[in-house]
Amino acid sequence: MANENKKMVDAITPMDEDFAKWYTDIVKKAELSDYSSVKGCMIIRPYGYAIWENIQKILDGMFKELGHENVYMPMFIPESLLQKEKDHVEGFAPEVAWVTHGGSEKLEERLCVRPTSETLFCDHYANVVQSYRDLPKLYNQWCSVVRWEKTTRPFLRSREFLWQEGHTLHETPEEAIAETEQMLNVYAEFCEKYLAIPVVKGRKTDSEKFAGAEATYTIEALMHDGKALQSGTSHYFGDGFAKAFGIQFLGRDNQLHYPHQTSWGVSTRLIGGIIMTHGDDNGLMLPPAVAPVQVVIIPVAQHKDGVLEKAREIFESLKKDFRVKLDDSENTAGWKFAEYEMRGVPLRLEIGPKDIENGQCVLVTRHNRTKSFAKLDSLKEEIAAKLGEVRDGLYERALKNRENRTWAAHDLEEMKKISAENNGFIKAMWCGDPECEDKLKEVAGVSSRCMPFEQEKISDKCVCCGKPAKSMVLWGKAY
Amino acid sequence: MANENKKMVDAITPMDEDFAKWYTDIVKKAELSDYSSVKGCMIIRPYGYAIWENIQKILDGMFKELGHENVYMPMFIPESLLQKEKDHVEGFAPEVAWVTHGGSEKLEERLCVRPTSETLFCDHYANVVQSYRDLPKLYNQWCSVVRWEKTTRPFLRSREFLWQEGHTLHETPEEAIAETEQMLNVYAEFCEKYLAIPVVKGRKTDSEKFAGAEATYTIEALMHDGKALQSGTSHYFGDGFAKAFGIQFLGRDNQLHYPHQTSWGVSTRLIGGIIMTHGDDNGLMLPPAVAPVQVVIIPVAQHKDGVLEKAREIFESLKKDFRVKLDDSENTAGWKFAEYEMRGVPLRLEIGPKDIENGQCVLVTRHNRTKSFAKLDSLKEEIAAKLGEVRDGLYERALKNRENRTWAAHDLEEMKKISAENNGFIKAMWCGDPECEDKLKEVAGVSSRCMPFEQEKISDKCVCCGKPAKSMVLWGKAY
Repeated sequence: MANENKKMVDAITPMDEDFAKWYTDIVKKAELSDYSSVKGCMIIRPYGYAIWENIQKILDGMFKELGHENVYMPMFIPESLLQKEKDHVEGFAPEVAWVTHGGSEKLEERLCVRPTSETLFCDHYANVVQSYRDLPKLYNQWCSVVRWEKTTRPFLRSREFLWQEGHTLHETPEEAIAETEQMLNVYAEFCEKYLAIPVVKGRKTDSEKFAGAEATYTIEALMHDGKALQSGTSHYFGDGFAKAFGIQFLGRDNQLHYPHQTSWGVSTRLIGGIIMTHGDDNGLMLPPAVAPVQVVIIPVAQHKDGVLEKAREIFESLKKDFRVKLDDSENTAGWKFAEYEMRGVPLRLEIGPKDIENGQCVLVTRHNRTKSFAKLDSLKEEIAAKLGEVRDGLYERALKNRENRTWAAHDLEEMKKISAENNGFIKAMWCGDPECEDKLKEVAGVSSRCMPFEQEKISDKCVCCGKPAKSMVLWGKAY
Repeated sequence: MANENKKMVDAITPMDEDFAKWYTDIVKKAELSDYSSVKGCMIIRPYGYAIWENIQKILDGMFKELGHENVYMPMFIPESLLQKEKDHVEGFAPEVAWVTHGGSEKLEERLCVRPTSETLFCDHYANVVQSYRDLPKLYNQWCSVVRWEKTTRPFLRSREFLWQEGHTLHETPEEAIAETEQMLNVYAEFCEKYLAIPVVKGRKTDSEKFAGAEATYTIEALMHDGKALQSGTSHYFGDGFAKAFGIQFLGRDNQLHYPHQTSWGVSTRLIGGIIMTHGDDNGLMLPPAVAPVQVVIIPVAQHKDGVLEKAREIFESLKKDFRVKLDDSENTAGWKFAEYEMRGVPLRLEIGPKDIENGQCVLVTRHNRTKSFAKLDSLKEEIAAKLGEVRDGLYERALKNRENRTWAAHDLEEMKKISAENNGFIKAMWCGDPECEDKLKEVAGVSSRCMPFEQEKISDKCVCCGKPAKSMVLWGKAY
């Protein structure tokens, strides 16, 4: 048993040896994703896709609860439409895929495969919005987008990825800004409560904001290796797009006005975030809310009288309330233990002859491998409690990792030293000049992740140039 | 009230005047879809997309119940991959969109945007299938596909559409054929039970089958105007794709074998089918199972004491069990009646001062505009029953339309006469020769819809050439 356990684990490169290799080993071994014949595009396999379905279901519910409606826009954008908003096209044109032929005919105008759909939503809004009575428009779409990235990694950066993009239109700037903030809060709540990933909420600096946005808000998470992952963004556009696309509405004052706009999105990148926040050398650890299998039932000494029957009875009694799997295959219990640990199943339920005698079973939580006994007649409550423990345990550990990897830097030398020795978040003051951001990238290897909403005063002076500081920035190395 | 009712309805072209115009009026007025800047691609608006979400939810549940798992494949297919199966590429290459550039660089190999994903699934299966223990593979994917059609109509035929495509791999031909049949039955059950659309199950002739398939099964529905709509297909591939893609498994006999394959799909076309099967001159009629709003509550004399309060109380009491909407806007009750009729809401609930006194409300079913009273204290049961009545009523009417529009033809002259005078299904015998199919298209304007599983013997001879007949075919004009 111990040997087999070991054999399973051997196939995964230890984190400390090579984190990148560890990551791809997990993705492959846990059958989350596979490479495809299309360079830079990934196949999302059933186990990986089931995580995405759970993410979608929860988020979609949160969006709808707040009045958002789903729609579907075309996947193609005519070149002339993409070009309507100057900053937007500059940001995206270099990395789009171009369709030039339909069948054997050359198209009159090239179409790009959507890298994001602001232009399509604006074009539609210009058709359907006439009066303040038509506002707000609170639309969202689940789809795939394409960005022609040079270096790719499954879930983290691929040429095609799945996401949702919310696009909303409001009567006033205040309403639009409130929506931008609200959706960032939704993302933060989702990450913390359901994915057990602590995040820092903040605003991007001008150099890091979305092409065409007035302001970009972000949630930033810290991975196990100390690198940052931008996990969701929410943008405020002002009326820039509305002007570029001629979206106008008759206001309460009987005058024509331009509406104010937002967009916000999260993607399959969150799956990369789950892997890198929670996983260990034995494999994945999945937060219960999105785990395809929340409880795996493993019969022990299953050839013995009554064991399989009992295991099946437990399975039947649990399947209404949990995503539960019974593995009654011929593999050894040891092999199964290792297999489902590797797959990150939050809770293992073992049931053997002795347990049955005592009216109990064994529960083992994945995140700390802690064993406990549970009475069969209160199993549902015990399991719900254990899954809660797993979520809390994962969250606490991730938060501790972030705390252990967060430093403050007061001057450039200190910044360089911290960055050379560690990966993590570095809090430091900034004067607001993009030149200082560039310099910090160059000499300290860190980029600005965000200006956190919760500001602290590390010093009075910019960490880079020494001039008076405007805000505290969180710096780091990013995925 | 009567006037306003009339005004709403005026905007829809009567069916008998121009069915095609009636269709596009409904699509536009009911806000199901809008045209986009991309020729031939549609925007699916919230009300239309909500129908699709309901379709997805039910079908996805049915698929999973049978053991299918969802995955996601790339949207691009390298040209060389598309070309691996000869018949398949011949069928699809003329109508695909080609990506030739990524950013500013020309791609080494062109990529087509998937028109269907057999090639991608095969490519993946070749990587992940080794042994009979890996079989069956029961995969499904929800995505959009692109086919560069020349003439397009919202939902019925567009350059991009949403669909699901199941792709399965089996140890034996028998298992694969059983899967092909099973999935056709799932589609038929879904259409009849949930969409209230009666369908004929059958097999396509060789000229009408899917490019690369050994056999294509289909469900064919008859629209209100007597034209046929192919509503779902299920294909059996034999081992043709497996051979082309080198998919092999080690069998129980320790020998290498090629697995046997199926694929099956339905699309947003079903929404077109719902519109054209059930709608009337007042607008849409939605089957309750997929209607975004199943019950609309309309307060009557809502300024009177207690009416709005009662309407809200009813809304709150129903919203857990039904998709319900309360329209307490300032529009007149008459305007509201017409609006929600046009939108096809299956059931209208009216509540006014007198009803409140009597502890009742008025229920009006959309399909027959029948009014009845319901006791407020058993409202949930009464509404569930009424929604069942609407489904049954829609189904019966559609079935009657099909029966009224089904003829039998014994010779070519009779066939031509029926087809010249009517739209509908024509049952007639066929010798099996594709030349006869071509001739019937030319001289009678009908194509073979399918060879129904339930065969009848109309005569001994082919309706076209008079030679001995092999099977009865259902002929018709198709969307």
